[in-house]
Amino acid sequence: MPLPHRTAAPRSNCPLSAALELFGDKWTLLVLRDLLFLGKSTFKEFLQAPEGIASNVLSDRLKRLVAKEIVVAERSTTDARVVAYRPTERGLDLLPVLVEIVLWAVAHTDATAPPEILKQLQQDRQGFIARVRARFR
Amino acid sequence: MPLPHRTAAPRSNCPLSAALELFGDKWTLLVLRDLLFLGKSTFKEFLQAPEGIASNVLSDRLKRLVAKEIVVAERSTTDARVVAYRPTERGLDLLPVLVEIVLWAVAHTDATAPPEILKQLQQDRQGFIARVRARFR
Repeated sequence: MPLPHRTAAPRSNCPLSAALELFGDKWTLLVLRDLLFLGKSTFKEFLQAPEGIASNVLSDRLKRLVAKEIVVAERSTTDARVVAYRPTERGLDLLPVLVEIVLWAVAHTDATAPPEILKQLQQDRQGFIARVRARFR
Repeated sequence: MPLPHRTAAPRSNCPLSAALELFGDKWTLLVLRDLLFLGKSTFKEFLQAPEGIASNVLSDRLKRLVAKEIVVAERSTTDARVVAYRPTERGLDLLPVLVEIVLWAVAHTDATAPPEILKQLQQDRQGFIARVRARFR
């Protein structure tokens, strides 16, 4: 099922527009947060996000992320009946985008990040990104 | 009129979630692109984006951006009958987010940016951001 914004907005050649076609959706970004920052990898884990994602929406966004090669779906190494999602290089390259969004929100809204993560981000965001990447190697 | 995602997703305390409540919408980000990178400032100019934004959607997104203090609306200095939009500090602080999105898209999609802008971004993104900020002082 295509997202409404895909029909409303024909593709232009603009990089911002092209990127938003691929991940410019609130739920998509929250799934990427859970995958990249919170160590979640299964449908069941994503479903438990405090924002309350609906299972049909989650299913749709995971399918889109796989189709766009931002994540891959594979059998869990601990339980072969379970599908585990893992970011691709293309997905890991979204880390700087997510980090900048988090830093903006901490500076300009009343949102908070876990202090140990925030400290790493503010002192050495490249190091933080490198450590997250290393977890998926 | 509230956006559908505002009712679908109650606020959590997560910075990514809080940021997406404020600007996590494709059209909102494209208006910010036009304002920050393309030198546009009026309703009429935003309406001409190649992505084809509808005037009621544009009107809604501009109102939200003003309400969230990401942009301010004021009378144009060249024509007092025209409203001109200008980013606040809070809005200018979104520049690193937009820059990272552009760099991701150029690396991972077939989108292109104007070569002179791309060169500046790849060689010295902080300098690029500083020059954009200076334009709004």
